[in-house]
Amino acid sequence: MSIECLEHKSKMRLPVSFYLLSVWLGFLCVIIVFLWSGTWRGGFAWDGSFLQFNWHPVLMVTSLVVLYGNAIVLYRVPLTWSRWWCKLAHAGLLFMAVVLAVVGLCAAFDFHSANNIPHLYSLHSWTGISTVALFTLQWFVGLCAFLLPWTPLAIRARLKPLHIWMGMAIFILSLITSLSGINEKLLLTLNGRNGSNTEPYTALPAEALLANSLGVLVVVFGLVVLKILSNPKWKNPEFENETDRPLLTDAR
Amino acid sequence: MSIECLEHKSKMRLPVSFYLLSVWLGFLCVIIVFLWSGTWRGGFAWDGSFLQFNWHPVLMVTSLVVLYGNAIVLYRVPLTWSRWWCKLAHAGLLFMAVVLAVVGLCAAFDFHSANNIPHLYSLHSWTGISTVALFTLQWFVGLCAFLLPWTPLAIRARLKPLHIWMGMAIFILSLITSLSGINEKLLLTLNGRNGSNTEPYTALPAEALLANSLGVLVVVFGLVVLKILSNPKWKNPEFENETDRPLLTDAR
Repeated sequence: MSIECLEHKSKMRLPVSFYLLSVWLGFLCVIIVFLWSGTWRGGFAWDGSFLQFNWHPVLMVTSLVVLYGNAIVLYRVPLTWSRWWCKLAHAGLLFMAVVLAVVGLCAAFDFHSANNIPHLYSLHSWTGISTVALFTLQWFVGLCAFLLPWTPLAIRARLKPLHIWMGMAIFILSLITSLSGINEKLLLTLNGRNGSNTEPYTALPAEALLANSLGVLVVVFGLVVLKILSNPKWKNPEFENETDRPLLTDAR
Repeated sequence: MSIECLEHKSKMRLPVSFYLLSVWLGFLCVIIVFLWSGTWRGGFAWDGSFLQFNWHPVLMVTSLVVLYGNAIVLYRVPLTWSRWWCKLAHAGLLFMAVVLAVVGLCAAFDFHSANNIPHLYSLHSWTGISTVALFTLQWFVGLCAFLLPWTPLAIRARLKPLHIWMGMAIFILSLITSLSGINEKLLLTLNGRNGSNTEPYTALPAEALLANSLGVLVVVFGLVVLKILSNPKWKNPEFENETDRPLLTDAR
């Protein structure tokens, strides 16, 4: 990393406070969804019971919202890492997100199978399966196009705007799916189904307050991430011009 | 409208096909939500019954998704209208949307009151009421700042990026709220509550297929609108530089 490069990076304008707000909000989302499943819903297991389903909200919010959000704002953060390490961190965080999302889906599918509940009937499940499928495809195409060295520069340059746009669209799909999922879980659980004997959702018990607040926090986190992405002043010029250079060959 | 201005407008690059796709998708959303409430849910009334609630999805999708989406892409459409007329059409469409959204909220609140259902307990209602409140505030601030002539240019220039950003954020909130609302309505109605004797949601009857498809269409419409907004090539330079000119005084 040259001094010039470090100086350039220090001039980037994403305020640390704004970035820390996104990290803090993401952390809070993970804590609250963990508390919800771990405390109000009885904890975790992998036995086809409700305790297995409890992994589903924890893993989906952690992967498709928090890890994904942090991975896509990474290029706006004034890191002193080289472009190659930023790219690897982006791909690495998203790979962790893909793996956790797939495990989170398995938790829901296994629970359905064990309890004779049909798969993929609700609107939440339709948007959810589309989100995970598009995300996995996007990750794979991103790996081939931007990390592996044999993709022609012309194709890379054409794919980059689509990759950025699809990344944002999939993140919005994740937010939509998370909110409908939290709402669905509360409607099914607190209204006497799924083996629960709590107060109904309409009485807004403490669990509903917590999970509704989780939904609001997910939206606020999402909007902070989208705000960071949308501000052209916070773009890193070094990343803007990357399509004319080789990638896996320029580790510094 | 001068010949130069018409020539400039004809060079704008939003393809007609892409704009027509957004209009067509919006139209399809309104048709399907109307069919759902009007045919599967028994039609409309204003008597505190389920038939009054049926106005809620129709009015909310029509106002906060379709009218709102069309109003915010208006500045990207190569119209031969003057800037002033575009601004008035934008404000007019959004005013219709505010009115329909408030009537749509009243339909839900009246239904709750008549049937002893508490208001504002679900996550859907929390995001929904926030969306309508922010939208109404945004419309009022937009009217004062960009249509009425007495706001100082310096304030107008500072408010414009915030107005554009808030407009997009509220649209994303509308999409999130619509999807959780459609999912909630299906969970409550098809699972034997709300006086319905249909097949359960898990059996994916024709009504569920129709309403799930409505949700998917709302998302696709939303992403097409966001794509139109996000492409810098499709911005109209005449609108980009408007903050240094008076507004209600420049009707041509």
